[in-house]
Amino acid sequence: MVSAEHNIRVLYAHTDKMGVVSNTRYLEYFESGRGEFLRQLGYTYKEMEEDKIALPVIEAYCKYISPAYYDDLITLKAYLKQIPTVRIRIDYELFVADRLIVTGYTVHSFVDSESLKPVRPSQKLLNILAGKL
Amino acid sequence: MVSAEHNIRVLYAHTDKMGVVSNTRYLEYFESGRGEFLRQLGYTYKEMEEDKIALPVIEAYCKYISPAYYDDLITLKAYLKQIPTVRIRIDYELFVADRLIVTGYTVHSFVDSESLKPVRPSQKLLNILAGKL
Amino acid sequence: MVSAEHNIRVLYAHTDKMGVVSNTRYLEYFESGRGEFLRQLGYTYKEMEEDKIALPVIEAYCKYISPAYYDDLITLKAYLKQIPTVRIRIDYELFVADRLIVTGYTVHSFVDSESLKPVRPSQKLLNILAGKL
Amino acid sequence: MVSAEHNIRVLYAHTDKMGVVSNTRYLEYFESGRGEFLRQLGYTYKEMEEDKIALPVIEAYCKYISPAYYDDLITLKAYLKQIPTVRIRIDYELFVADRLIVTGYTVHSFVDSESLKPVRPSQKLLNILAGKL
Repeated sequence: MVSAEHNIRVLYAHTDKMGVVSNTRYLEYFESGRGEFLRQLGYTYKEMEEDKIALPVIEAYCKYISPAYYDDLITLKAYLKQIPTVRIRIDYELFVADRLIVTGYTVHSFVDSESLKPVRPSQKLLNILAGKL
Repeated sequence: MVSAEHNIRVLYAHTDKMGVVSNTRYLEYFESGRGEFLRQLGYTYKEMEEDKIALPVIEAYCKYISPAYYDDLITLKAYLKQIPTVRIRIDYELFVADRLIVTGYTVHSFVDSESLKPVRPSQKLLNILAGKL
Repeated sequence: MVSAEHNIRVLYAHTDKMGVVSNTRYLEYFESGRGEFLRQLGYTYKEMEEDKIALPVIEAYCKYISPAYYDDLITLKAYLKQIPTVRIRIDYELFVADRLIVTGYTVHSFVDSESLKPVRPSQKLLNILAGKL
Repeated sequence: MVSAEHNIRVLYAHTDKMGVVSNTRYLEYFESGRGEFLRQLGYTYKEMEEDKIALPVIEAYCKYISPAYYDDLITLKAYLKQIPTVRIRIDYELFVADRLIVTGYTVHSFVDSESLKPVRPSQKLLNILAGKL
């Protein structure tokens, strides 16, 4: 398993009238976690796009366990548990201090970033993951 | 099964640099579909809150099948397939003309809108649904 | 002066913990008003882009006068007061019933939608506006 | 003049089909800059709310000078140029490296965070600013 973590500060604009972070905001938090995960692996998504590979989201799931509040500092952990095949799944766990607030995952396909047709997983990504998973 | 549908126009602000609606936007579209579903049943979510009942999202799932583009008119269908128990699940299907673009669901618990503690399903909602499901 | 209006339903996701529509949401509402304004003129922004003309926002201003609440139906009025030159300014007034909630404007330049270089105002748009302004 | 700066990473979800950060996103960036500005002064907005003072936005202005792209690291500078009276104005300058991309401001009134009625500026904030402005 390969993982990475980083922090997100909850803005007012992320909350809704229940006084908590809107359920609709978490997929954006997931994107942030995924991006930092790839950056920490040493192969940013921007570089992947420059290599003509894109990873569109084909499924997303969120489980809302506990609320996050304005100005909370969310710790976002992203995990890769399996060698990617034609698809790659990233898992997420979000915490405020020790309190687990949200879990979820996204599934992505590998596509050519111009034609959007399916391609094999990025060899560069597989090389980076080899030995880590 | 009870269902309702309405339309959403895709704004520029909903798209991302892939030229399609961002995966992060669909949970907001789902909320819109859910709200119109309740309105068409004759019991808006606003009225439910006035009756001290809230339906926080405890799970959400999206499956992205086909892209939606700027200025598309999305038809959003929301379905209730089962009598709610302590939870209620709403299913969604989004179309652009006849093309299915996204499916998904949200699961909600019934809570007191002030204390946020679990409560029974709204009797008013159950009465409306009786005979329809 | 040429004007158009349409309605926007306030979603939960548009509100923040103050219980009102977030100040950050109104620029998206403005986009919606602008898009319907052009549609009602008979020349959608999508068609304008197909004609290789884009109208990026170069300035935006919002004045927040009164709050909008969850489930409010906002009436959004968009106005064009002057013949566009190298720039075009659209003014907005948002109401909930008779209550004025927000006013503002956006200023746009005419650019080639591919090179993003400045171009003359769309002749097709000027023809549509001739006689109306 | 008092100022503060911090960084924001541009997400995919912040971009639109022009391939740049959506004009609608910047008011949220401004909120982030304002929040960090107050945090660096030693008096967070959350603490201000606990002291029953809120600062709703009553005006906002953005000038879009140059685009920001996916994965850019935006440096956001927030400035307070004048002692607040019944209102407080914050100015913003956003850069990508040395390139100025957006300038703008927000104007806020001081209100009681429960009644939302106007109040005097927070004495605690004035004390912090005394000697700095």
